[in-house]
Amino acid sequence: MKLVIAGTLALDTIETPFGRAERIVGGAATYIALAASFYIQPVGVVSIIGNDFPAEMLAELERRGVDLQGVVRHISRPSFFWAGRYHADMQTRDTLDTQLNVLEEFPQTLPSTYRSAEYLLLGNLDPTLQKRIYDQIYPHPRVVLVDTMNFWIERTRSALEEVLSIADILSINDEEARQLAGDYSLRRCARALLAKGPRYLLIKKGENGALLFSQEGETYFFPAYPLEDVFDPTGAGDTFAGAVLGYIASQGVLNLEVLKEAVIQGTVLASLCVERFGPEALLSFSSEEVKQRREQLIRMSHFIQVPI
Amino acid sequence: MKLVIAGTLALDTIETPFGRAERIVGGAATYIALAASFYIQPVGVVSIIGNDFPAEMLAELERRGVDLQGVVRHISRPSFFWAGRYHADMQTRDTLDTQLNVLEEFPQTLPSTYRSAEYLLLGNLDPTLQKRIYDQIYPHPRVVLVDTMNFWIERTRSALEEVLSIADILSINDEEARQLAGDYSLRRCARALLAKGPRYLLIKKGENGALLFSQEGETYFFPAYPLEDVFDPTGAGDTFAGAVLGYIASQGVLNLEVLKEAVIQGTVLASLCVERFGPEALLSFSSEEVKQRREQLIRMSHFIQVPI
Repeated sequence: MKLVIAGTLALDTIETPFGRAERIVGGAATYIALAASFYIQPVGVVSIIGNDFPAEMLAELERRGVDLQGVVRHISRPSFFWAGRYHADMQTRDTLDTQLNVLEEFPQTLPSTYRSAEYLLLGNLDPTLQKRIYDQIYPHPRVVLVDTMNFWIERTRSALEEVLSIADILSINDEEARQLAGDYSLRRCARALLAKGPRYLLIKKGENGALLFSQEGETYFFPAYPLEDVFDPTGAGDTFAGAVLGYIASQGVLNLEVLKEAVIQGTVLASLCVERFGPEALLSFSSEEVKQRREQLIRMSHFIQVPI
Repeated sequence: MKLVIAGTLALDTIETPFGRAERIVGGAATYIALAASFYIQPVGVVSIIGNDFPAEMLAELERRGVDLQGVVRHISRPSFFWAGRYHADMQTRDTLDTQLNVLEEFPQTLPSTYRSAEYLLLGNLDPTLQKRIYDQIYPHPRVVLVDTMNFWIERTRSALEEVLSIADILSINDEEARQLAGDYSLRRCARALLAKGPRYLLIKKGENGALLFSQEGETYFFPAYPLEDVFDPTGAGDTFAGAVLGYIASQGVLNLEVLKEAVIQGTVLASLCVERFGPEALLSFSSEEVKQRREQLIRMSHFIQVPI
């Protein structure tokens, strides 16, 4: 299994100003796997589901080359459940309910076929668990992409620092970058975070695009694809990360040129994702849509015809 | 006078997390004139000052080719005064004090030498006054750039709509765009605002850069220059607008290619402005700094080596 991802598989109840979706499939691993499998298959998933997780979604994932050997199915407990309500700005949200359920029994060991993974995406999970997953892959993966969130930054700082030290790419949002680096200036944050280990830092800024910083001091700015409407921002960051590492794995190499294209791909897939509720859009987008949005994004940013 | 600008000349007391500056020269026209005069001279200014406005700043402006024929000096009243405190994010602020003083007697008639202006920048002022200034220029200016703010959007909507109908370029921030268009999606806002008259819309997003929309449906995204520290955001938007129209006037033509370069110039000058208190940086920056930041901005954005 060349590419392995770890993250939650969940049921979500989502309210936005545009509507409400009840107990739909969600969780970081759903978005990551669907995005990554657009670029490379199979995608091995490490996760856990309960007895209420829809069989049709498992079948759908498998049809898309998502390998579920690493997914434990608990027979007597429900899936991880999250309920949230987005505000009118579609960027801030309140968590209405979180039920860990099976998440407490997240698998601690990898299937043997996953232990030679070359590309590893550690989605937002307890950093101790992220590290345990990484440690089982030997030789160590060529590229490790790490995501995290404020919860772990606040509570498990030293475990998180260990994970950062093995990361090649850290993909977090601007608020998390500021919290993790303890600074306001994103430029100084970038320097501080890159000193902790990652070769590359991706700072996601929602509708304001994304920044890429390298250890060599390079900075690139990527706009978000300008949408008429955002229906449901859930999963945008996971879709972005899944596309980024999926694309890199499909190229078989990580360098700045490959990563820049990966970020464009991530931006495009995230823009498609948020136009529908939950992972719905990721089940129905076309290569043609990706191609068109990619071209528009490049045209929007390359504003000088003969640069410099 | 080829280029004429209208706006306030003020004294500001500014508090930021980095320090405090008491009764320093400010006001939109100060920033606009200093920025525009980097590209073209003379720059005619329509404004009013009180008996407390420092003579050294007037001399400094004149040394930079800023023409003050349109500036009335009131002998018995103090200048427009504003005091504000920026929050730790350096993007939001509280107004602590506003004393209109001489602003109530803002000049209603233009010096005859200003009445053939080809480029007109109507800084944030009462839209009735903006329109009155415009009406005195005949034949009408080739390019009119308009700025405004929430105060006028809320209170003088119909007068503002008249000003929009004569604008070639509208330059406002994202919050103002949303308020003026009554919509959240910036893409839909752009369509609604361009339908009111302007050929081009510039939406300023502070540290998140700027968007350019054209009536022909084109969209371009410009990153902000990534700074280590912002010391004082006061005047950034005015500096941006002044540089944009100053650059256009220096080229003698407005088209998409010229405007894109103008936006880069505006972005660069605004980035220099916010690194010091008040207009201090605009009195001391060099052409070399502008050139270097311009190149970095382009490099950051042109992330694909062979576009499309």
